[in-house]
Amino acid sequence: MPYELFYWDGIQGRGEFVRLALEDAGASYIDVAREPSRGTGEMLALLSDTARGDIPFAPPFIKDEGVIVSHVANILMYLGPKLGLAPREDALRWYANGLQLTITDLVAEIHDTHHPIAVSKYYEQQKTEAKARSTEFLKNRMPKFLTYFERVLQQNPAHSGYLVGSGTTYVDLSLFQVIEGLVYAFPKAMSGYEGRYPGIAQLHHSVSRRPKLAAYLASPRRLAFNQDGIFRHYPELDIGG
Amino acid sequence: MPYELFYWDGIQGRGEFVRLALEDAGASYIDVAREPSRGTGEMLALLSDTARGDIPFAPPFIKDEGVIVSHVANILMYLGPKLGLAPREDALRWYANGLQLTITDLVAEIHDTHHPIAVSKYYEQQKTEAKARSTEFLKNRMPKFLTYFERVLQQNPAHSGYLVGSGTTYVDLSLFQVIEGLVYAFPKAMSGYEGRYPGIAQLHHSVSRRPKLAAYLASPRRLAFNQDGIFRHYPELDIGG
Repeated sequence: MPYELFYWDGIQGRGEFVRLALEDAGASYIDVAREPSRGTGEMLALLSDTARGDIPFAPPFIKDEGVIVSHVANILMYLGPKLGLAPREDALRWYANGLQLTITDLVAEIHDTHHPIAVSKYYEQQKTEAKARSTEFLKNRMPKFLTYFERVLQQNPAHSGYLVGSGTTYVDLSLFQVIEGLVYAFPKAMSGYEGRYPGIAQLHHSVSRRPKLAAYLASPRRLAFNQDGIFRHYPELDIGG
Repeated sequence: MPYELFYWDGIQGRGEFVRLALEDAGASYIDVAREPSRGTGEMLALLSDTARGDIPFAPPFIKDEGVIVSHVANILMYLGPKLGLAPREDALRWYANGLQLTITDLVAEIHDTHHPIAVSKYYEQQKTEAKARSTEFLKNRMPKFLTYFERVLQQNPAHSGYLVGSGTTYVDLSLFQVIEGLVYAFPKAMSGYEGRYPGIAQLHHSVSRRPKLAAYLASPRRLAFNQDGIFRHYPELDIGG
């Protein structure tokens, strides 16, 4: 029975963190909203269902053998062991989930660089505030997060080049995606990041060369970043913009 | 061996969600930063430790038998079963974690009502933007979240009055805390919320009457809300403010 992934069509968005894990593991899954015979309507119907007792607040969520799991970190904690992308030791699983939740916070802050006031309004209606928030993000917040993940890599007692333990976990795939997105959104601010965060750069490189992931990234299933997603390239929000 | 909770002294903050679960369960724990013989310095030393391989990004985190668990939802998922505050069925545990992560998102949005631009700056330096973000929050976001939690309560097949299954879980305690905070921060906007969200009001009432929790709330260990925490009462940010 394939996993069913429910997420908006047309953007990578938060669903992409789940997709990367499924693709890297070669798992069988249905991307419901993008499936011609299914579609976004089915996702919306489930969200507004007034009978069922397990309604998610928002996409992404997955369905597996009747169980619904929502929120990226929750989905990845659920799927990780099944996909061979979680650490084996319990203590490291809690650590991995803590790291994933730090990525969740970082992603929310990246989203708010272009929507600091209201998600119900267009970027163009909050451009001045977006510039102020982006400046704060690029000057203080992004370095704080990236310095942290660099420390996590350097201080991993397994010295594996991965964030947790001796092998690849879903958290590595998610950090790869964050770097992809940041380089797209803020090319000037990210210029030369490899020198400042060598462990992260090395991780990004090694994840990008994983055969199934590389095949996915080169496939039409990998949508391009665009101005409707979380990571958006507005040159005026970048350093010197 | 008591649990060790690491969180800032002087505010309820995110640590309070963990504290409520520990207190409700009557668990033995040390509030490290508030313990005269320990203190905030110990927490900061752990966060900046350059040797250990399990560093949290930020408080709150707990230590239990040498295992560090960080982020509220992760801590509560870890502690829930040990404290008798998690559902028994696996599917409901994933559901509970999804609900807790929705609370995490709501709490982050509440924080950003007074700090929409920069956490490194004072509220007074972003008052105009805070008013705009608060207006959006009170008009669109808060009702969206509360309507969702009301649905979760009404659609719970156990008809227990609790969010998940037939008994109290840590998610109920966290939603109680959110309501406490919202009533403190936005008394005008929350006025009459009991009529609009009867299930939430009933849950808030029943949680407040749990004996150990009520004893905690009446104790000096329960700090008052204040203008340094997540929930802040700036009258000018409230409806009609």
